Amino acid sequence: MKKFTKIKSPPMGHRKVRIIPLGGVEEIGRNMTIVEYENDIVIIDAGLQFPEEETPGIDYIIPNTKYLETKKDRIRCIIISHGHLDHVGAIPYLMNMIGNPLIYTTRLTKAMILKRQEEFPHAPKLRIEEVKPGQKIKISKNLRLKFFGITHTIPDAIGSAIETPLGNIIYPGDFKIERDNKGNPLHIKQFVELGKEKNLLLLMESTNSEQAGFSISEKTVQENLERIFKEAKGRIIIGTFASLIERIIEISKIAEKLGRKVIIDGYSIKSNIEISRELGIFSPKKDLFVPVESIDDYPSEKIVAVCTGAQGEEKAAMMRIANRKHKHIKIRNGDTIILSSSIIPGNERSIQNLKDNLARQGAKIIHYKVADVHASGHAYQEELKLMVKMTRPRFFIPVHGYYFMLKTNSDLAQSVGVPAENIAVPMNNGVIIETDGKKIYPLKETVPANYVMVDGLGVGDVREIVLRDRQMLAQDGIFVVITVIDSQTGKVKNSPDIISRGFIYLRESQELLHQTRQLIRRTVEEATGKMHPINMAYVKELLVEKIGKFLFQKTKRRPMVLTVLIEV
Amino acid sequence: MKKFTKIKSPPMGHRKVRIIPLGGVEEIGRNMTIVEYENDIVIIDAGLQFPEEETPGIDYIIPNTKYLETKKDRIRCIIISHGHLDHVGAIPYLMNMIGNPLIYTTRLTKAMILKRQEEFPHAPKLRIEEVKPGQKIKISKNLRLKFFGITHTIPDAIGSAIETPLGNIIYPGDFKIERDNKGNPLHIKQFVELGKEKNLLLLMESTNSEQAGFSISEKTVQENLERIFKEAKGRIIIGTFASLIERIIEISKIAEKLGRKVIIDGYSIKSNIEISRELGIFSPKKDLFVPVESIDDYPSEKIVAVCTGAQGEEKAAMMRIANRKHKHIKIRNGDTIILSSSIIPGNERSIQNLKDNLARQGAKIIHYKVADVHASGHAYQEELKLMVKMTRPRFFIPVHGYYFMLKTNSDLAQSVGVPAENIAVPMNNGVIIETDGKKIYPLKETVPANYVMVDGLGVGDVREIVLRDRQMLAQDGIFVVITVIDSQTGKVKNSPDIISRGFIYLRESQELLHQTRQLIRRTVEEATGKMHPINMAYVKELLVEKIGKFLFQKTKRRPMVLTVLIEV
Repeated sequence: MKKFTKIKSPPMGHRKVRIIPLGGVEEIGRNMTIVEYENDIVIIDAGLQFPEEETPGIDYIIPNTKYLETKKDRIRCIIISHGHLDHVGAIPYLMNMIGNPLIYTTRLTKAMILKRQEEFPHAPKLRIEEVKPGQKIKISKNLRLKFFGITHTIPDAIGSAIETPLGNIIYPGDFKIERDNKGNPLHIKQFVELGKEKNLLLLMESTNSEQAGFSISEKTVQENLERIFKEAKGRIIIGTFASLIERIIEISKIAEKLGRKVIIDGYSIKSNIEISRELGIFSPKKDLFVPVESIDDYPSEKIVAVCTGAQGEEKAAMMRIANRKHKHIKIRNGDTIILSSSIIPGNERSIQNLKDNLARQGAKIIHYKVADVHASGHAYQEELKLMVKMTRPRFFIPVHGYYFMLKTNSDLAQSVGVPAENIAVPMNNGVIIETDGKKIYPLKETVPANYVMVDGLGVGDVREIVLRDRQMLAQDGIFVVITVIDSQTGKVKNSPDIISRGFIYLRESQELLHQTRQLIRRTVEEATGKMHPINMAYVKELLVEKIGKFLFQKTKRRPMVLTVLIEV
Repeated sequence: MKKFTKIKSPPMGHRKVRIIPLGGVEEIGRNMTIVEYENDIVIIDAGLQFPEEETPGIDYIIPNTKYLETKKDRIRCIIISHGHLDHVGAIPYLMNMIGNPLIYTTRLTKAMILKRQEEFPHAPKLRIEEVKPGQKIKISKNLRLKFFGITHTIPDAIGSAIETPLGNIIYPGDFKIERDNKGNPLHIKQFVELGKEKNLLLLMESTNSEQAGFSISEKTVQENLERIFKEAKGRIIIGTFASLIERIIEISKIAEKLGRKVIIDGYSIKSNIEISRELGIFSPKKDLFVPVESIDDYPSEKIVAVCTGAQGEEKAAMMRIANRKHKHIKIRNGDTIILSSSIIPGNERSIQNLKDNLARQGAKIIHYKVADVHASGHAYQEELKLMVKMTRPRFFIPVHGYYFMLKTNSDLAQSVGVPAENIAVPMNNGVIIETDGKKIYPLKETVPANYVMVDGLGVGDVREIVLRDRQMLAQDGIFVVITVIDSQTGKVKNSPDIISRGFIYLRESQELLHQTRQLIRRTVEEATGKMHPINMAYVKELLVEKIGKFLFQKTKRRPMVLTVLIEV
């Protein structure tokens, strides 16, 4: 707190800044934030979120842009911090809806966005302007953008500051702070410089706010990999994330140095490496990469294979190797497998499966618990605190993380001097956070915030009820009864049809089916016997209730029961 | 290896021992192992496994006992090591099938088994004989049982050795080795004594075989809890596993010492505490426990509430507190919440949810990452190695764990002297491992090993196909088409009925439904036009194919398509 009161800042103007997170707060993924100053809107990132257990069958969840759709003319630009899907993934879906504004981003990120856009032939042609660290761009009478370099697991990640009359709004994006061998932080001069300016607000990621200390340096990982490479007598097979472009490039460089050929197996890694080469981010010797088909043309000690699927994704290269279904790579004695990745929560079982199947074939497996072969790209507590101390913002908003992470991040900011009343922890409800430069406070009004789900070609057409049905179907299946009723007599014609899936193995349940058919007949005929005309809606409801109860009593399961009555 | 060659053991006899794991190998849970010597069968444990993602809607998975069902007359007894469900949970389901053999177990475990049996009124009356550490029981001409004490997270856990003419078969069950303040292992004299005997085989758990060093001592956890209790000014609310009876008793003792009342909220904790009191395992003062309804009758600093639901289970007490749905416990400022448990893989999201919701209400949250308020009940690497060194078995079979854990455990055993050729890593395929005392080897034959699933009242009636259907239904839902065909003309009568769940929000998809109905009519009438008589099976198949393709083309989703044709 003391440090803050020392900052000599001129009195704030009467104009206001609004921050509206459209995603990434109280959740992981679909990072997107609106910065509003008078008539200007700047958007930061446009990411997607991967589905979870509660959203079965869904492809992605994207931010709700309803609020922006009514204000297209005020959107000056979108700033994209880096090329990971949780920051760029929603672009193909929402650019059309918000008037296809100009995108500012770096060279690699631009190339990655354009590459992905090819999969969406009906999406509009994007307008992207390349920016570099150090660059400044005036985007309106009141606003100016400034960019600074940042370290993440992907090259060309960039941080930004939006200069407003109230001061700078700083957004480092996803970042970590590398350190030298003595533990001194690297590349921080720009932040120290930035700290001398009038900084209104820091929007800082919270992914690792619960992790004490400093994150493992990527350099340490590289050194460990090099050591393992040197020690390995046979082939080296590495499973990793395609998004860790920085590391994949480094692995290729180590291989080159040690005279090993590199095989890349996995569409997304290949595509990322290709883009990096095209842009000159990485310039390997011509013959460094060899196709996977040729793996057996080289001696074991001359091969490094980099594969997708370190999370045990079903169809990825690593899993096919594990399941002995890979066309070209068969594990043999002497192979060293490195899983250069962490465990994304929810993937524990599939990674266990992967490790089990690889180990069964006699491979030596090195994973992040055994050696430092993976480092997070997100700042740990000491790095987060350092960023606050360097940039010295008046206000602080933690972003990117579940509530507890946001809360912990705000505790960290407090611990290095940001007063509690200058911190706003945003909720995932379309909250509008406003500041006049003196105070920071949420408004009573909110913007539309309900989830927009992408499922196949549909964007936003899957509703809660559809998901609830999917969950219910997954529990005890479905039981459909089709009954033909003679409209004259009210009698059931023929034997009712029963279709059931996911409930019980029908072939072995003939007795249950027989009893159910009797129940249907009895229920329908008792009901219709007293009715003229027949109230079909009533009979249907009665049938659903009776069948549901009967099946539960017999099996203690509750399939979804549907009935169709056909009058003839 | 050296140590082993030193053991002076007489020449082995010609008779053989068979070990048949019915569960708990290459998986977690449903621990059950058969030990066979000539005409005698001894069973060790009879646990269940909780369902996973691939088995939606299933209650439990239990061991397949087909092999035993043909050999009932040879089963001498079941030994139960302790009262956790992965060791006792299958008892109510399978005792009938294997002839209800005599159970040997300890007093508390017996009480827990009998308590659970009450929920199964149709299950047979169990025959249970209580045993104690140090006890020896002759169960047949050739076999004798010996029992020894073991430390786990539940009182009255017991290890066993089956004395055979070939030597002892040792099964510690789930265990950890406690240490004193100087790091010296406690209560190991009995194992050192056992190590002097002729030990044929050690069956040892592998749960934490990937964890280096020693596990955190339960004593450390107790000391930390006491310190936190002393520092807390307000109420203390603890979320933990009901199975951690040892810890819950200790928490109650600390509360008693510090003058706090204890509230237990959660059926299973209450039941476990009650049993422990009845058996005299724990003798608190009369008024230590107070009902949850009276929580507001005591000052904050006089309350400790122990709740179920530390894993974020939906209906458990802790989750109700978090969701502000608990009748009596509302979080207020000054409350200290301790999550005295680890994260069971797969529960990350629900625990995050729990933490988020508790933190939102202003509670201080202490979890295992922040302080040592939880310790595993399973031995880490150094403890596992110690057990091997103390018991000095000729052969080694790792049990309880996924393949990689079993493999790692066998590496540990090798590292302390068991020759590789004396280790058998069992597969989860009904493998029969045999030893003649000289060698250990799997037989070619296996016993039936496919999963037996418990779903509601059904045991074993849910087949792969039912689960596959559930998974498919969860992805894109179901689409049922009911078409009435005039058998004279082959024309479709009325508009086909369409029912769909979990696929798309029908109310907003009228156009799609309209087009589908047209497709149905066209498809049916084109097919039936040339047919006399109508081949209903063919029309049905054709319809499923056409509708499936049409829906995928329109939505990129693949609901399960079912058709019913009704001829009138």
